[in-house]
Amino acid sequence: MRGDSGETGTLDDVLAWRDGHIVAIDQTVLPRDFRVLHIITVDELVDAITRLAIRGAPALGVAGALGVALAVRQAEREGWGASRLAAEVERIAGARPTAVNLRREVQATAAVIQEGPAAVEAAATAVWDTAVSVSLRMSERGARYLSEAAGTGPLTIHTHCNTGTLACLGWGSALGVIRALHEKGQLRQVIVDETRPLLQGARLTCWELGQLRIGHSLISDGAGPFVISQGLADAVVVGADRVAANGDVANKIGTYALALAARQAGIPFVVVVPESTIDDATENGQQIPLERRPEDEVTHILGVQAAPAGTHALNYAFDVTPAELVTTIVTEDRLIFPSATAISAGG
Amino acid sequence: MRGDSGETGTLDDVLAWRDGHIVAIDQTVLPRDFRVLHIITVDELVDAITRLAIRGAPALGVAGALGVALAVRQAEREGWGASRLAAEVERIAGARPTAVNLRREVQATAAVIQEGPAAVEAAATAVWDTAVSVSLRMSERGARYLSEAAGTGPLTIHTHCNTGTLACLGWGSALGVIRALHEKGQLRQVIVDETRPLLQGARLTCWELGQLRIGHSLISDGAGPFVISQGLADAVVVGADRVAANGDVANKIGTYALALAARQAGIPFVVVVPESTIDDATENGQQIPLERRPEDEVTHILGVQAAPAGTHALNYAFDVTPAELVTTIVTEDRLIFPSATAISAGG
Repeated sequence: MRGDSGETGTLDDVLAWRDGHIVAIDQTVLPRDFRVLHIITVDELVDAITRLAIRGAPALGVAGALGVALAVRQAEREGWGASRLAAEVERIAGARPTAVNLRREVQATAAVIQEGPAAVEAAATAVWDTAVSVSLRMSERGARYLSEAAGTGPLTIHTHCNTGTLACLGWGSALGVIRALHEKGQLRQVIVDETRPLLQGARLTCWELGQLRIGHSLISDGAGPFVISQGLADAVVVGADRVAANGDVANKIGTYALALAARQAGIPFVVVVPESTIDDATENGQQIPLERRPEDEVTHILGVQAAPAGTHALNYAFDVTPAELVTTIVTEDRLIFPSATAISAGG
Repeated sequence: MRGDSGETGTLDDVLAWRDGHIVAIDQTVLPRDFRVLHIITVDELVDAITRLAIRGAPALGVAGALGVALAVRQAEREGWGASRLAAEVERIAGARPTAVNLRREVQATAAVIQEGPAAVEAAATAVWDTAVSVSLRMSERGARYLSEAAGTGPLTIHTHCNTGTLACLGWGSALGVIRALHEKGQLRQVIVDETRPLLQGARLTCWELGQLRIGHSLISDGAGPFVISQGLADAVVVGADRVAANGDVANKIGTYALALAARQAGIPFVVVVPESTIDDATENGQQIPLERRPEDEVTHILGVQAAPAGTHALNYAFDVTPAELVTTIVTEDRLIFPSATAISAGG
């Protein structure tokens, strides 16, 4: 793997198949450094996914598909048999457990391995194409829905983590909706949670919004619910890593608190996801595997030790927001109203 | 001001009047460094309060009282007239606006200035003595209440920010209750929010609990409400900077989110404060002045830049939790049940 620090790259390099390997922006070093990774082996890809150099549910799906193509190339080079190849493909699928897209797209792409390398690469790049077009469609649908629901006047949108081009390709999911509102002149500003422990909001969302010249204010995660209670936001709009069949939503830790606050304040809590993030095989949120990550992501921040040496930390990377708190799920194809369903099911 | 890095100090040095000046532990550098400040002038005291070297509502009250004694000494040395002295005393009172204790104890101590320096120093050290004894009484009362309310079995307590000896002298407020539960064998463990932006939970509460050998787990603030939803905590116990007459509670940003989550999970949300933090002159939470602090506390963490240069941040240092979400307020003298009152007033 080659990491070109300071390489003059653009968001086109977020994640792509180029000259028989994967290129990706290293999202761990943004915004301080813009580094493009050239990923040649499965080991390098699994490492990039595990340490969140590549992240975001839809982008993980694309990385999984491209990863199968990468594994097939490596199998040819190194003379792997079918079982070794299958094991390596499984390592990619299992690199992160919560986002359903990763395993789903790995499996879909691996299904054509019998048809040869060219078919695998065609399938993988089709996943890339689809991710981009799906992003644009859900962005447009979400912006239309929010502007209709809001009536007149530009909106202030509160968001969490990073759900833009870096996470999804195209325009993103929640951040794609924000961008589409901005294009329509219907956005006042964005409130961005910093999103501890890994600060995807502060580092990545602020960076993307800055590139797009969209006005935004950064807040600490603990401030989110209070800011909502003060009427500063018109809606909370987030992405998700997995939506269960009943409408429960797994997303970056901190999302549940915003959903509680949105309900209390009477503003919509909107989840923007591709259809591929909805997992009908998972009945409800309790069945979603929630990744727990290393303690030092909490005890240390940006490489600096915050807590005393030896402090034990609980590092839940994701939380589950129950369907009853979700106003609307926006996909490329439809609007879903889980809380209405939950309420009618309950009543 | 002399700052002795690495000085062999103890928690006795948190804040005290010694040899005609104020000594205080510099809480901005813990736990990486243990530094005792020797504060000689009003300028130095205001600086220490403003940058949170001295912090915590009850400790700010003590610092204000000692600060009047300090100002009187400086007035003698430098030949200030009464109006200059009054102006310097007012600078101390106004150094931080949200905690009611600071202005209250400054005014109480300044009321005896006419009686001469000895009377002022006696009044100020009486404030110190009272803070310590009040802390022990509210710690004991809170622990008795929680253990009775919980029935059998040790408790897991979720807390926010720092409310121990560093914030209150004595045993603290919320952390004093936790320490008293521990002494009674009725504490399982403590869940500690890191408390961005200035990380008083990660830096100070984990340090104090470590000194006391009380088991604890650190989490990021965004994880707090989800951890509560998962049944990990038996109660949320926090301090406060000001309690309004109607029971609304101003406390460190992030508190409101925990109160929402506690109500949703059906566990008690308990606020531990000295009577001196209850401000009958403030009718409700909307009237409490909420300090907004510099943006770089959010954009930078522990001196490292997190967000892109030029990012705008909203830095609310405090939030308001409405009385209807507060199960119990514990003081040295009584238990108050604001949500019950609010409910009966509303119904």
